[in-house]
Amino acid sequence: MTTQHTAYAIGHAPSQTKHHEWRTASNSAAHLLPHLEKALTSNPNLKLLDIGCGPGTISVSLAQHLLPSGHVLATDIADEILLRAKEHAISKGLAVPENISFQKASVYELPFPHNEFDIVHAHQVLCHLDDPVSAIKEMLRVCKPGGLISLRESDMRMWCFWPELPSLLKFHDLMVEIMLANGGQDKGGRKLVSWVMGAGIKREAIEAGFGTWCYSAPEDRRWWGEAMIERLRTGWMRKKGIEMGLTTEEGVEEMVSGWREWMSREDATLGIVNGEVIVKKAPSLSAA
Amino acid sequence: MTTQHTAYAIGHAPSQTKHHEWRTASNSAAHLLPHLEKALTSNPNLKLLDIGCGPGTISVSLAQHLLPSGHVLATDIADEILLRAKEHAISKGLAVPENISFQKASVYELPFPHNEFDIVHAHQVLCHLDDPVSAIKEMLRVCKPGGLISLRESDMRMWCFWPELPSLLKFHDLMVEIMLANGGQDKGGRKLVSWVMGAGIKREAIEAGFGTWCYSAPEDRRWWGEAMIERLRTGWMRKKGIEMGLTTEEGVEEMVSGWREWMSREDATLGIVNGEVIVKKAPSLSAA
Repeated sequence: MTTQHTAYAIGHAPSQTKHHEWRTASNSAAHLLPHLEKALTSNPNLKLLDIGCGPGTISVSLAQHLLPSGHVLATDIADEILLRAKEHAISKGLAVPENISFQKASVYELPFPHNEFDIVHAHQVLCHLDDPVSAIKEMLRVCKPGGLISLRESDMRMWCFWPELPSLLKFHDLMVEIMLANGGQDKGGRKLVSWVMGAGIKREAIEAGFGTWCYSAPEDRRWWGEAMIERLRTGWMRKKGIEMGLTTEEGVEEMVSGWREWMSREDATLGIVNGEVIVKKAPSLSAA
Repeated sequence: MTTQHTAYAIGHAPSQTKHHEWRTASNSAAHLLPHLEKALTSNPNLKLLDIGCGPGTISVSLAQHLLPSGHVLATDIADEILLRAKEHAISKGLAVPENISFQKASVYELPFPHNEFDIVHAHQVLCHLDDPVSAIKEMLRVCKPGGLISLRESDMRMWCFWPELPSLLKFHDLMVEIMLANGGQDKGGRKLVSWVMGAGIKREAIEAGFGTWCYSAPEDRRWWGEAMIERLRTGWMRKKGIEMGLTTEEGVEEMVSGWREWMSREDATLGIVNGEVIVKKAPSLSAA
């Protein structure tokens, strides 16, 4: 297996992780929760692998669902973010490593045996990869026969703003262009079923849907807008956007003003769409 | 109040109502259901007004949630579709008019007293209107102080197809163009909060989100694709599209072929986004 894949282009600057910390199982893995509850009734010792955990808020939230005797193993490719995720787990009262543990790993070469986990979960990971199908094959390898793969991927073209400020439309274009220039995927949400089938899974083993994030209530608007401004002011969007010649200092400042205006508008909304699939690995499909 | 508003441009041909019959409270009013359950615990005799009921599948499904002693009054502007909705209610074992009744009405001039209903519901109605704010004011008038308005509106720009067949992208453009040419709204989903505030409601009385439809499983794909082909072959899209010079017989046949190809693709998906709001009418806001 090649290791010449895209790294996590956008990095783990504070501006990026702030944006990630709002995420929990209920707002970002709702499609998995009923399956998790059902699986727990027959096996309270569930082993869940969370790939690309970032600051760990979804992993920790999933570990809370698995208490008292299930376990989450959370991975990421960056040491510094794993430390932060571990701190978050401890701050939420979870026992490390009993309830949740952390390990550096690439999704393309997971350092785990075949058929190891009951559930393999990844949230907005495939959209950063140049070869999502290979990553799904690797997830399938470490999933137990009869186990589940749970995926949620942004469909980056599916954003809607109100009001439709020109500077926000430019922000959106810039974000998509950087993602593509770094070998990522802009239409992962709609392609998830196709990717999973490309990894050798039959259609009938896939449950597909779309889930949304809505930023409109005052606290959500403020939180999201400030995270986007940090991305522009100090984070990867400014750095990459200017480096790649996609925007300028002035362009960045216009987008900052756009977000400020959007945050101040009581009638503002932002809708973001994610594709969601649950894949059942056939009981006969033991990896060898 | 003027009556010079848009009529229901797309009509109630069988091709259109077929498309509507898949809809139930759980796939099209999920945002309302928790509020409904809560309201029922304090008042089992809830009176719900469902505006623009079409073939009545959502109305009937809501009436089933209100059994045994709640009541749904379902309205539409066309007699023929109300007959069909009534037949559907009877076929589902509901008592007419005890559990559900039907009445012709325009959303702009509802023939009901002030402060009459506990819940006023409309699903994909405002997107067909040239003056959605006036319609919301009228809904507020007939809603009891302390009652709820539940709205769900398509954001017609927020469709994603996989595979992205050029003929399906043309279909989507045609649908939006016809909607706009008839005085309807293409971005209702994202504008709902703004419209409700335009009707005089404060932001803190509004709960906003987005909900999706996903057509990907074989039965959903077949059902949706066939409904779209009927719209093209015998329904309003062919008639209006050709009348308005937006497409030709050949263009229509290309789109039909596109839907056939999409239906035959096991990895196909279609995501559609709706804005959803729950509005609480302040207990002090009695209409006079």
